[in-house]
Amino acid sequence: MLGAVMYAAGDVRVEERERPTVVNPTDAVIRLSATCVCGSDLWPWRGADPVTRPTPMGHEYVGVVEEVGDAVRNVKVGDFVIGSFFASDNTCEICRAGYQTSCVHREFVAGGAQAEYLRVPLADGTLVATPGMPEPDLVPSLLAASDVLGTGWFGAVAAQVGPGRTVAVVGDGAVGLLGVLAARQLGAARIIAMSRYESRQKLALEFGATDLVTERGDEGVARIRELTDGLGAHSVIEAVGTQESMMQAIRATRAGGHVGFVGVSHGVELPGEELFFSHVHLHGGPAPVRRFLPELIRLVWDREIDPGRVFDLELPLSEAAEGYRAMDERRAIKVLLRP
Amino acid sequence: MLGAVMYAAGDVRVEERERPTVVNPTDAVIRLSATCVCGSDLWPWRGADPVTRPTPMGHEYVGVVEEVGDAVRNVKVGDFVIGSFFASDNTCEICRAGYQTSCVHREFVAGGAQAEYLRVPLADGTLVATPGMPEPDLVPSLLAASDVLGTGWFGAVAAQVGPGRTVAVVGDGAVGLLGVLAARQLGAARIIAMSRYESRQKLALEFGATDLVTERGDEGVARIRELTDGLGAHSVIEAVGTQESMMQAIRATRAGGHVGFVGVSHGVELPGEELFFSHVHLHGGPAPVRRFLPELIRLVWDREIDPGRVFDLELPLSEAAEGYRAMDERRAIKVLLRP
Repeated sequence: MLGAVMYAAGDVRVEERERPTVVNPTDAVIRLSATCVCGSDLWPWRGADPVTRPTPMGHEYVGVVEEVGDAVRNVKVGDFVIGSFFASDNTCEICRAGYQTSCVHREFVAGGAQAEYLRVPLADGTLVATPGMPEPDLVPSLLAASDVLGTGWFGAVAAQVGPGRTVAVVGDGAVGLLGVLAARQLGAARIIAMSRYESRQKLALEFGATDLVTERGDEGVARIRELTDGLGAHSVIEAVGTQESMMQAIRATRAGGHVGFVGVSHGVELPGEELFFSHVHLHGGPAPVRRFLPELIRLVWDREIDPGRVFDLELPLSEAAEGYRAMDERRAIKVLLRP
Repeated sequence: MLGAVMYAAGDVRVEERERPTVVNPTDAVIRLSATCVCGSDLWPWRGADPVTRPTPMGHEYVGVVEEVGDAVRNVKVGDFVIGSFFASDNTCEICRAGYQTSCVHREFVAGGAQAEYLRVPLADGTLVATPGMPEPDLVPSLLAASDVLGTGWFGAVAAQVGPGRTVAVVGDGAVGLLGVLAARQLGAARIIAMSRYESRQKLALEFGATDLVTERGDEGVARIRELTDGLGAHSVIEAVGTQESMMQAIRATRAGGHVGFVGVSHGVELPGEELFFSHVHLHGGPAPVRRFLPELIRLVWDREIDPGRVFDLELPLSEAAEGYRAMDERRAIKVLLRP
């Protein structure tokens, strides 16, 4: 089968790879209907994470179950399914508390989802089947639920977004934009999107943003405070993962407010004293997408939300490298790949 | 009047100072019944915070209102009152959300409470009167409510302590011990106190600890995990403020659990990536004691709790320096000073 493999920063090749099969009785193998390039894939592409050996890429997936292990009960061959980037048993105490990405048996879906087929461990706990075969136009939105929608949603939940709250969103990538969508769904009174790119601003407004802030860093913080009677937002979703974005998020939050941080931290060191006196709540991490999947699938299936609109470029899997380049150069928000 | 002044690390003198008077119409002046030395006073005593000029010390106080400004309505001359180390208006949006220590008009009670008299700004928002003149044996417990009890309580609330939860407490000073008491009051199922000092262990057990852990750092974390099926505690109260204690608290908390940090941060830098993958909730800061004062006063007044037991040494105000030494050398948990 074809699959994307990263050899070094800036070097992704789509090549013939061995087709995965069931290894453990709890595995499923799925035939991918669509996959995509993640903002976090850009860290190694840009050299911010080392690439020590050729690495199969991709961890976002939707598709049809092709084969299941003997122990699998919850999904069957022919089901259309969605899962998250971490496989989880969904039964341990941590999963039951809603933190499936910290499941005691968690396993990164490491096989590389930018491919024609993918082995998913712990299939019963990890995969959720849709009510039937989706209409083709729903596939991008279902694919979004696999990571970016679930991650934006977790950012909003971690930031305690709710009715009457003013929300700010740091980061205008797919996760930030879907944080805006999540905030809208969760009833926020006001949603301030921070973006300086017109196409992203436009999508933010369509997803429910009520205000746009183009300034960054301290100036961005000052603008958020101006818009909130000098107090800061109740809830801030951080969807970048850098030192600047984290400090921007913390400083844009009022005392007693909540920061939900879902950008994968890179080189971040939080000053304890500032955090202490900020009085913010801080919560985040790898989004436990599995917690939200049933609800997100329902919202997409009923056409209440259309998160697939973050995919503004679609390419055949064979052109994956062009997808990386388009996202790196900000020519595309998010790239969908068709195997 | 007499008051304690710090001249340099290790140099506290009780000397004649000018007696404070009402400056603003919202002020009150109180005659102190008791005051004390705070763990945070030991930072400058030990040279960890610079002492740039002679500084009146103390910020914990109970006493009788001696004089009020023209605008004061909620307390009157003769009332026995308790307040917190930050004066607050208790009416702004931040106060109403329960974060009085970040009040938009907050003012540190800087006059030095280790003295015979103290000026308290924003008296209406800051001071809470007891139902009457307290029995003398209640005074230490009411004094504890001014800071250490309120701070331990906030630590427990910030760590989301509640029924069925396993709580660990990092730090066996007065705040940590009263975090144990708070956790018990808030219904925790299990309370693990971390202490290696016998007198503190004893008090922790009397306040409601169910387990003691004497190990620190990574070994302490490993013990907490052993005691919690490998998962970590649901709630961890951090009551020290150092890099080691913060990391101990974060690492002793299960994914999805809560750290309430109330030790004043000194030189702490939190690694973003570890925090991200830890999946903990982090909240803390200067305790909004005012939020809890009415309830804490009621519990003390009704003799349901006895937090004053953290005072294991009582000295006349004139011997304040000996109080600092006794706490610094861990001969005393907390020192009460009688003006």
